[in-house]
Amino acid sequence: MSHDVSFLDDLDVDGETSTSSGTLESHAADWGTPDGEGVAPDAVVYPESTGDVSRVLAAASDRGVPVTPYAAGTGLEGNAVPVDAGVSLDLSRMDAVRDVRPGDFQMDVEPGVMGSAVDDRAGEDGLWFPPLPSSGDISTIGGMIATDAGGMGTVKYGEVSDWLVRLEVVLADGTIVETGTRAVKSSAGYNLTELVVGSEGTLGVVTEATLELDGRPRQVRGGRAVFETLDDAAAAVTDAVQSGVDVAKLELVDETSARMANAYTGTDLPDAPTVFVEFHADHGVDEEVRYCREVFDAHDPLRFEIAEDGDGMDELWQARRDLAFAIRSYDPDLTPLHPGDVTVPISEYGTIVRYAKRLAAEHDVVVPCFGHAGDGNVHYSVLVDATDADAVERGERVYKQIVEKAIDLGGTSTGEHGVGRGKRQYLERERGPGAVDAMRRVKRALDPDGILNPGKILPED
Amino acid sequence: MSHDVSFLDDLDVDGETSTSSGTLESHAADWGTPDGEGVAPDAVVYPESTGDVSRVLAAASDRGVPVTPYAAGTGLEGNAVPVDAGVSLDLSRMDAVRDVRPGDFQMDVEPGVMGSAVDDRAGEDGLWFPPLPSSGDISTIGGMIATDAGGMGTVKYGEVSDWLVRLEVVLADGTIVETGTRAVKSSAGYNLTELVVGSEGTLGVVTEATLELDGRPRQVRGGRAVFETLDDAAAAVTDAVQSGVDVAKLELVDETSARMANAYTGTDLPDAPTVFVEFHADHGVDEEVRYCREVFDAHDPLRFEIAEDGDGMDELWQARRDLAFAIRSYDPDLTPLHPGDVTVPISEYGTIVRYAKRLAAEHDVVVPCFGHAGDGNVHYSVLVDATDADAVERGERVYKQIVEKAIDLGGTSTGEHGVGRGKRQYLERERGPGAVDAMRRVKRALDPDGILNPGKILPED
Repeated sequence: MSHDVSFLDDLDVDGETSTSSGTLESHAADWGTPDGEGVAPDAVVYPESTGDVSRVLAAASDRGVPVTPYAAGTGLEGNAVPVDAGVSLDLSRMDAVRDVRPGDFQMDVEPGVMGSAVDDRAGEDGLWFPPLPSSGDISTIGGMIATDAGGMGTVKYGEVSDWLVRLEVVLADGTIVETGTRAVKSSAGYNLTELVVGSEGTLGVVTEATLELDGRPRQVRGGRAVFETLDDAAAAVTDAVQSGVDVAKLELVDETSARMANAYTGTDLPDAPTVFVEFHADHGVDEEVRYCREVFDAHDPLRFEIAEDGDGMDELWQARRDLAFAIRSYDPDLTPLHPGDVTVPISEYGTIVRYAKRLAAEHDVVVPCFGHAGDGNVHYSVLVDATDADAVERGERVYKQIVEKAIDLGGTSTGEHGVGRGKRQYLERERGPGAVDAMRRVKRALDPDGILNPGKILPED
Repeated sequence: MSHDVSFLDDLDVDGETSTSSGTLESHAADWGTPDGEGVAPDAVVYPESTGDVSRVLAAASDRGVPVTPYAAGTGLEGNAVPVDAGVSLDLSRMDAVRDVRPGDFQMDVEPGVMGSAVDDRAGEDGLWFPPLPSSGDISTIGGMIATDAGGMGTVKYGEVSDWLVRLEVVLADGTIVETGTRAVKSSAGYNLTELVVGSEGTLGVVTEATLELDGRPRQVRGGRAVFETLDDAAAAVTDAVQSGVDVAKLELVDETSARMANAYTGTDLPDAPTVFVEFHADHGVDEEVRYCREVFDAHDPLRFEIAEDGDGMDELWQARRDLAFAIRSYDPDLTPLHPGDVTVPISEYGTIVRYAKRLAAEHDVVVPCFGHAGDGNVHYSVLVDATDADAVERGERVYKQIVEKAIDLGGTSTGEHGVGRGKRQYLERERGPGAVDAMRRVKRALDPDGILNPGKILPED
């Protein structure tokens, strides 16, 4: 449904407003929006300040016009794409680093700054932003906060939310609030920071985040192990976690993904399940590598290679790094349905991966699985011939059954990409009706007119 | 105001209900309630199951009767003490460990279990609960969740909230909800876990918590450094944090506290500012100790002692460990006003400690300062002759000015003991009216009848 957005012309806002069809169209999809399913906004506003955001939201609230925050558009669940037109609030021009306090290991940034820019700036003081996802050079801090993103480093360093000290947030009615202080801990009142993190712009719009940084580890080593079977690889992962190997990254790539990666990068890796590892330490990194090898050896790896230096590590890791692109370009006749992730307790890691592979075989679809195995995380795509209606239907069924299985194993339908539109239907199965109702009450309390990113996270009432 | 609690007799609840005056009186105070200020409940209920809690809350909601959760009564801000009588919901008999899953590093516990019991049980599998406060043997997990407790280990391991995977919570109307899954990460919906943590029973009653555990560190070393001046000691602390020394505990004790501790324990420690340190590592702990000594050496410590073994460490740490008791028993003529804590950004650590000492001198009151310095945390008491009205007034003024200074330095009025009644007046100064209003809206959404622990956290409307 189209909305009257002419009120934007009368607002005292510095940022540009665009209604050009190209701009509207470019805000009608993210990486996870199937072709033709995106809804274009009626206008795109590019705020340049917290005040701009406040004025747009206050006016939209008064008029009941939906506002959907947007930035890089790299979400996988339609998180930043309107379902009911209205205003797309594109925060990509609010990309300043407002303050750096290296003595407090803190940096205040605007939401549109790219993750890699944060890390680069931190590096000038010998610091880094440990939870940065591997998509950090194409996605913004605001998007990472909106989905409570995680990544390869989560197994050691936690998620983005674990590295946030405070947020400046504009609520639906335009009120600007600060959700925390600059102290590293506080137990003063309700944790609004964590309430807003992962809420995908449905409770408020983040206009500034105080990030915690850390000193860069003095020692980094990394490499990979190739296993004969997926069972061996999954068991090695679980065993490493349960034995307390201190890994900074622990990634599994199944044989399907390995085949795609090898085709794409032309590496000499066998098309076999591979576990990529990285270790960070200030002391004794080699002892940790030895301990990991010992644990892996019980699962008979075909190879276990650790690089001598950073270039060597880059080479060993290339297949993992390029995987997202490799899957996309593997076979022009195959389209990936809903790339996304599920996450299960680590003790169920082998179960979920085996289940996915068995379903793929049973339903004759291609399902590459990979991901941040150390967290119990599985990224998977179901690849089908999009012109074959039966294949698409089988693919959708496989996709759904994997999500449901993850939930039934005590896991989650989405470990790090949020709910958006794509995972709404699973929220009640995962959390139960009482928790969903509590979320709905919180939503109504903070956004009574329902203008903020409607149609996301919460299932239809 | 007294409430009619006769409805409790008709409830199908397994747990005991008591209205004996001794029981009511014992629930009218916590460690932070000044004599004579506690309000006794009309009844104390000891639920034995989640169902019991649900039935009590549903009935109390129907009748608008306040319910104040209680357990060990060790809170410092009146958190668990009624302001308006009603029901005291004493969770101390719900103290079971419901499940342990060592392969997932997880344990499901009821809220009344003591912190030390959790740690002991984890130890049977070679695991531990890293954020356990030093009060772990006298306080419950439920209380730690209610206040988002931290402690000595927070500098390395974070707070209790960082080690929670999911909660089972009973809402005001009796609905039982689960706030998370058993996966270590999830971005499905709003973070109800973190919303409930630190909410002091004002949003719901926690009936089960899934805790994350970790492998015990293979190497532990510890000791202490004595400095000539408080400035030197504070600078050493700040410098250690800013240099990235990987400490597991980093505690400062000022000369006033040192004098009290020495009088109490009879140690040979000089009455001088002392920094206590502990290091945990799997490898290279001695290198980390050396690095710390190097950093400390720039601030001319009078001594730097590291123990050779655990017993030696216990001996070196004794003065710090016994400090709370030492302060209480220091001088029978002096009463501590409101023991509690503030926390500031680490770069302001010296500023807040110097400010507290200067105020103490100016106003002629005794102010021992100590605490988890590595977090920027300061615990302080203002000791005054309670029979001297002028001294009490000066003491109250000093107490208040230290809290306000912490807030003005970008810090928080309460790092780890919650708001309760004691810190309500500071919440708006710390977070601003917009954030307080947002908290109030969340409170109303989840507890529309306002029965859950009224009069806490949020300032008067």
